[in-house]
Amino acid sequence: MGTKLVPVMDSVCRECMQVGWGARGGENMTEELGLFEAIYTQRALRYISPAPIPDALVRKVLDAGIRAPNGGNQQRWRFIVIKDPETKRWIQERYRTTDRPAHAPPRNQAETATMARNDAAANYLAEHLHEVPVLILCCLQHDGSPSDIHRGASIYPAVQNMLLAARGLGLASVLTTRPRRGFEREIKEQLGIPENVDTAALLPLGYPVAGKRYGPTNRRPVEEVTFDEKWGRGWEART
Amino acid sequence: MGTKLVPVMDSVCRECMQVGWGARGGENMTEELGLFEAIYTQRALRYISPAPIPDALVRKVLDAGIRAPNGGNQQRWRFIVIKDPETKRWIQERYRTTDRPAHAPPRNQAETATMARNDAAANYLAEHLHEVPVLILCCLQHDGSPSDIHRGASIYPAVQNMLLAARGLGLASVLTTRPRRGFEREIKEQLGIPENVDTAALLPLGYPVAGKRYGPTNRRPVEEVTFDEKWGRGWEART
Repeated sequence: MGTKLVPVMDSVCRECMQVGWGARGGENMTEELGLFEAIYTQRALRYISPAPIPDALVRKVLDAGIRAPNGGNQQRWRFIVIKDPETKRWIQERYRTTDRPAHAPPRNQAETATMARNDAAANYLAEHLHEVPVLILCCLQHDGSPSDIHRGASIYPAVQNMLLAARGLGLASVLTTRPRRGFEREIKEQLGIPENVDTAALLPLGYPVAGKRYGPTNRRPVEEVTFDEKWGRGWEART
Repeated sequence: MGTKLVPVMDSVCRECMQVGWGARGGENMTEELGLFEAIYTQRALRYISPAPIPDALVRKVLDAGIRAPNGGNQQRWRFIVIKDPETKRWIQERYRTTDRPAHAPPRNQAETATMARNDAAANYLAEHLHEVPVLILCCLQHDGSPSDIHRGASIYPAVQNMLLAARGLGLASVLTTRPRRGFEREIKEQLGIPENVDTAALLPLGYPVAGKRYGPTNRRPVEEVTFDEKWGRGWEART
């Protein structure tokens, strides 16, 4: 049996632009990030450095995306990698004037703090989106029928794989839907996107700004959002 | 610093119903599955044993789901855990008569083989859905506006986390959208689901049937589905 190679955390060489891989648990190697550790610490990272990132990392993120489940394995996803400064500026001008979705009022002090932090970070990203080295526009081809939530089942699992991969590679990103919500028609015209395609997400991608890092998310526990057999009946683990 | 505990693969005790956790890399412990290994091998597993699974595992899957990104951290997801034999049978009777989405013809022999395998597996699951120990109906509360693909950004990342967690815990599952596509109104009435809620996915969950396991997915490479700056212009990693 050969040695098993896995991506090694924090071992990207910014000079020669290669992603580090190594033997799992090798003496001088940092271990690959574990699945659950990645899931538990993949929060939005909206403070993104303008430093360029190697295409090898962009490809690694995309390569995680295309492993995701999708309807009938039709792989109708298409990704546009955007680095052109003028295009990024064009997007930023529209992104910053698109409203965030309405929020319910926070329920407690922790939620108030999280919301204030997220608002500040969202504003920072909106002002700096054009400086982010790479934007990935995630699109889905469709059959012309009206858009519906279930169409998202063929693209957002890929998007989530990409966000987890970014977290695993030490890159900052966040799931945004502002093009779809705010300037779908315009961005499709600008980028030559055909009619039967929905833009689903815009992922900014780059190194985190110094001092910003991944960490635990602030979520209501499973028991507050899970029902037993019927809507409204409390669930808890019994066995 | 205390010892860091992580879920240990294949260490669930089916007698005492506890998920195994252990020190990473401990002498007698199986290592936690790596993030990229999970992503690269999380394919649909539709051959699911009727053997019961502990709630502790169901909770672990849900607990991965709620870490996912979602619009404004509003956490409008709700999950219904279904084990009741009559409800499962009721769902199966409607699930099996709901069409799969239309497929484009396969492009080569490998795709033909994959499609035939998937069709057989999908038919198997449709005939045996009521025997699967747990069904999780993943729902999303909304504001009453028309459904749209971007609404999926607040539920399918959670669904993907759940599928990756299942893969990490050695459980079989698959993303299905048949309730939404085939019997949304009926299932909402059956389970008492309020008006402003979309069902987004139904995840069957159980141990894999003997001999069925996770493995690599069959996908077109990144370069076939990625564009450079504009739709239709080929992209490849250059740096």
